[in-house]
Amino acid sequence: MIKHALSVTRAQDFAQWYQTVITEADMAEESGVRGCMVIRPWGYGIWERIQRLLDDRIKATGHENCYFPLFIPLSNFEKEAEHVEGFAKEMAVVTHHRLIPDGKGKLIPDPAAKLEEPLVIRPTSETVIGTAFSRWVQSWRDLPVLINQWANVVRWEMRTRMFLRTTEFLWQEGHTAHASEAEAREETLKMLEVYRSFAEECVALPVIAGEKPENERFPGAVETWSIEAMMQDGKALQAGTSHFLGTNFAHAQDIKFQNANGELEFANTTSWGMSTRMIGGLIMVHGDDDGLRVPPRLAPWQVVIVPMLRDTDEDGAILDYCRALQRELAKLSACGEPVRALLDMKAAKSTTKRWGWIKKGAPIVIEVGGRDVAGGNVSVIRRDRLYREDGKLDSAVVAKTDFVGRAAGMLEQIQSVMLAGAKARLDAGISRDVADMAGLEAFFADDVKNPGWVEAGWSKPTGVALDKVVEKLKSLKLTLRNVPQGAPPATGTCLFTGEPAVERVLIARAY
Amino acid sequence: MIKHALSVTRAQDFAQWYQTVITEADMAEESGVRGCMVIRPWGYGIWERIQRLLDDRIKATGHENCYFPLFIPLSNFEKEAEHVEGFAKEMAVVTHHRLIPDGKGKLIPDPAAKLEEPLVIRPTSETVIGTAFSRWVQSWRDLPVLINQWANVVRWEMRTRMFLRTTEFLWQEGHTAHASEAEAREETLKMLEVYRSFAEECVALPVIAGEKPENERFPGAVETWSIEAMMQDGKALQAGTSHFLGTNFAHAQDIKFQNANGELEFANTTSWGMSTRMIGGLIMVHGDDDGLRVPPRLAPWQVVIVPMLRDTDEDGAILDYCRALQRELAKLSACGEPVRALLDMKAAKSTTKRWGWIKKGAPIVIEVGGRDVAGGNVSVIRRDRLYREDGKLDSAVVAKTDFVGRAAGMLEQIQSVMLAGAKARLDAGISRDVADMAGLEAFFADDVKNPGWVEAGWSKPTGVALDKVVEKLKSLKLTLRNVPQGAPPATGTCLFTGEPAVERVLIARAY
Repeated sequence: MIKHALSVTRAQDFAQWYQTVITEADMAEESGVRGCMVIRPWGYGIWERIQRLLDDRIKATGHENCYFPLFIPLSNFEKEAEHVEGFAKEMAVVTHHRLIPDGKGKLIPDPAAKLEEPLVIRPTSETVIGTAFSRWVQSWRDLPVLINQWANVVRWEMRTRMFLRTTEFLWQEGHTAHASEAEAREETLKMLEVYRSFAEECVALPVIAGEKPENERFPGAVETWSIEAMMQDGKALQAGTSHFLGTNFAHAQDIKFQNANGELEFANTTSWGMSTRMIGGLIMVHGDDDGLRVPPRLAPWQVVIVPMLRDTDEDGAILDYCRALQRELAKLSACGEPVRALLDMKAAKSTTKRWGWIKKGAPIVIEVGGRDVAGGNVSVIRRDRLYREDGKLDSAVVAKTDFVGRAAGMLEQIQSVMLAGAKARLDAGISRDVADMAGLEAFFADDVKNPGWVEAGWSKPTGVALDKVVEKLKSLKLTLRNVPQGAPPATGTCLFTGEPAVERVLIARAY
Repeated sequence: MIKHALSVTRAQDFAQWYQTVITEADMAEESGVRGCMVIRPWGYGIWERIQRLLDDRIKATGHENCYFPLFIPLSNFEKEAEHVEGFAKEMAVVTHHRLIPDGKGKLIPDPAAKLEEPLVIRPTSETVIGTAFSRWVQSWRDLPVLINQWANVVRWEMRTRMFLRTTEFLWQEGHTAHASEAEAREETLKMLEVYRSFAEECVALPVIAGEKPENERFPGAVETWSIEAMMQDGKALQAGTSHFLGTNFAHAQDIKFQNANGELEFANTTSWGMSTRMIGGLIMVHGDDDGLRVPPRLAPWQVVIVPMLRDTDEDGAILDYCRALQRELAKLSACGEPVRALLDMKAAKSTTKRWGWIKKGAPIVIEVGGRDVAGGNVSVIRRDRLYREDGKLDSAVVAKTDFVGRAAGMLEQIQSVMLAGAKARLDAGISRDVADMAGLEAFFADDVKNPGWVEAGWSKPTGVALDKVVEKLKSLKLTLRNVPQGAPPATGTCLFTGEPAVERVLIARAY
């Protein structure tokens, strides 16, 4: 029986386990500000890796980064009716621009400094960016406009959970304007594919890309597409969305251009975003009962060297040996980038450090003691296979030169192993043989036996008919996720309406 | 007589010229939100370069990035008295978390959703980060804490100016806690030196590093140090600050630790920041009457290739030639990084593109026409020497292979030439022979003859005596900048008090 590093296992209490991983891996903590977290260096380091790798892909597809204001005037927000409807309930509102002492040692907003027009903290930036687009776009020659911003946004959430749902969160939001509907639709799917491949190749997160049903559309969008990932408890997490906005926002924000024939047309726009929520997905897909496991491509440190010092004369030789190892590793390249190797010099016991890095999920932990130096060896712990058959920690003594020769390949292998594991779970977790509502209820009644999703044919109801379906699902704590791209054609009848099925839809519990 | 690209020259109207550069170089624009700007791709691309290069240096000195909340509860802010005093006048205050329709088609803050405790948008994060430090620091083993964040902050400014003073701006803020005063003081000066060398080596911006006088200290700091840059109109711009906070914030935020002897001590803390203001400095130091000039290390694109297409059969060959050139350039390395070369494929006339890139300040613009292809040549425009002796644009036809062989060296040379030019201006602009107040007034009375600063001995008055000096200077629209590090010892008497001078201080008009 293995004694794991965390005080709670996934099987015991998945929600508590999730919080424990975040705490024990030093990723984030409560800030004392309602619904806002402090992202600590290890959590933020992972976000920086996500930024770097995703930003490269966003730029490689022709987009440029900009920065737009945090504040959105109320009047600006009133223009797109559906959009307001969707967001008005959960926004932080700035009403004053000065504080004054209240005479009792406290500060209060200065009544003399009340804003004429309140400012909303951006929940998303379609409105303020649309206003800029209307200035930038005059002629077909100005199109397409392909921009992105990395920013913080605020949505006032009643129930928050670190990384998954916080009042303030970090994201990128892409916004584009095009001369034709076809081009805007192509852009929407291109960025969906960027998200899908990024999730799979960098986060080792297999996802299902598809179109969200009408009720799950972004407020103001014509179509919303998503990538959905399966957590280890079988729930779905929407990990990125791409919206085709048609001319809805162009009408609201007056984004018009003169086409090649001299006629005025409204532009077609898109928007797409991925956020710090992805880190929540990473934890729930790759974490285990010993803490987080970070895929090598996202690990701020891929190889951590822990010197086993004893306050003896030997220490100097151990440190020299470790420094030389770090230098050799830094010369290697894995997954197309230089290997990131850290020599952990913190003042702490080496076993504390070892377990600290295991809980943080560094892909490879190297321990170096006096005996290793004498023998020209290192002790290697791989985070993806932590224990031996007999339940003991698998720390393998290997020749240093052998390890250096194999380190890059080992990192690449860990990346693939993590993807393959998650992919096998996703594939096994989707049931395609649920034939009716009774079957659906039965499937989701047994969380332990069936931690996963159902893909079923449906008749794609709209309006009131769809509302009924959504309500029925809600009573079962279920949601419609998306209509997978490239799914086989639907046959038979709709699970909900009894009408002929026209496409296949994913049904799941969700975060 | 050269006909320059901008409609206004520096000599005609420096303030108007500054705005014109920003507009013509597509760097930023008014957003429609009071005091907030939209940073456009070229401006933001320069900021991304600043981030990348400065972040590398911040990490190389042992700091890790984190992220702290945008919101600071009012109570949190009330703890450090001087700090509140310094910032309370200019903060955005969130008082509601929901909007509702007012029944007349508009939205208003929902009275039922008034926050119990208003939230301030961070003007700087000492208070919220200090609160985190008090959780993180228990023992001397937890020290030092060395962290940094890249974030947006808000200070409600009455008069704003793009990049120099905006309500919302972007910056990095470093925050550290140390076991001893000596170590915290060392950190303060270490980061000042990081700023100084970054400004000089990356921005080609020579600066004077020194301690700010008492009246210019950051609210709550024991010492504030700055780097000061000289603009082309002779005014000073504070381009980065580093604060030694002593135990002031540790007392306010309860940052205590048990030392090696088991006694409780307050930590010594520091903070230091550099912001998008640096881009304003870059414009005013390196811009000329043809627009911006970006030092190669900061240029998002260092070499821009403009194909001179004519809608003829020749175009295909020109584009192939340009693509090959771009690939060859991308293989080169300049200033330690791969060369960033762009092939400009926008739908516009090639002369429009040429002047667009000149106004944006790309270090090298290459034009390729049919004749260049036939001769195996390229036409090279260097942004740092735009015109020939005869006043004509200096576009030199050189063999393509020669250009490729010299491109990296040319970029490095442009970087040094820009630094040398700015350094010569700074050195020539500091007058050290002003002996009395009459001399000071006379020096600054003639902006055109004396665009620069005065360095003079002073007696370092404090309190009320200093207030008098500051007031007198204010009446002359002058400010004390800093006491330069490593200046020769002061001799003679203080310009202001007549007492013996104890150190040398810089006096200047300032942004």
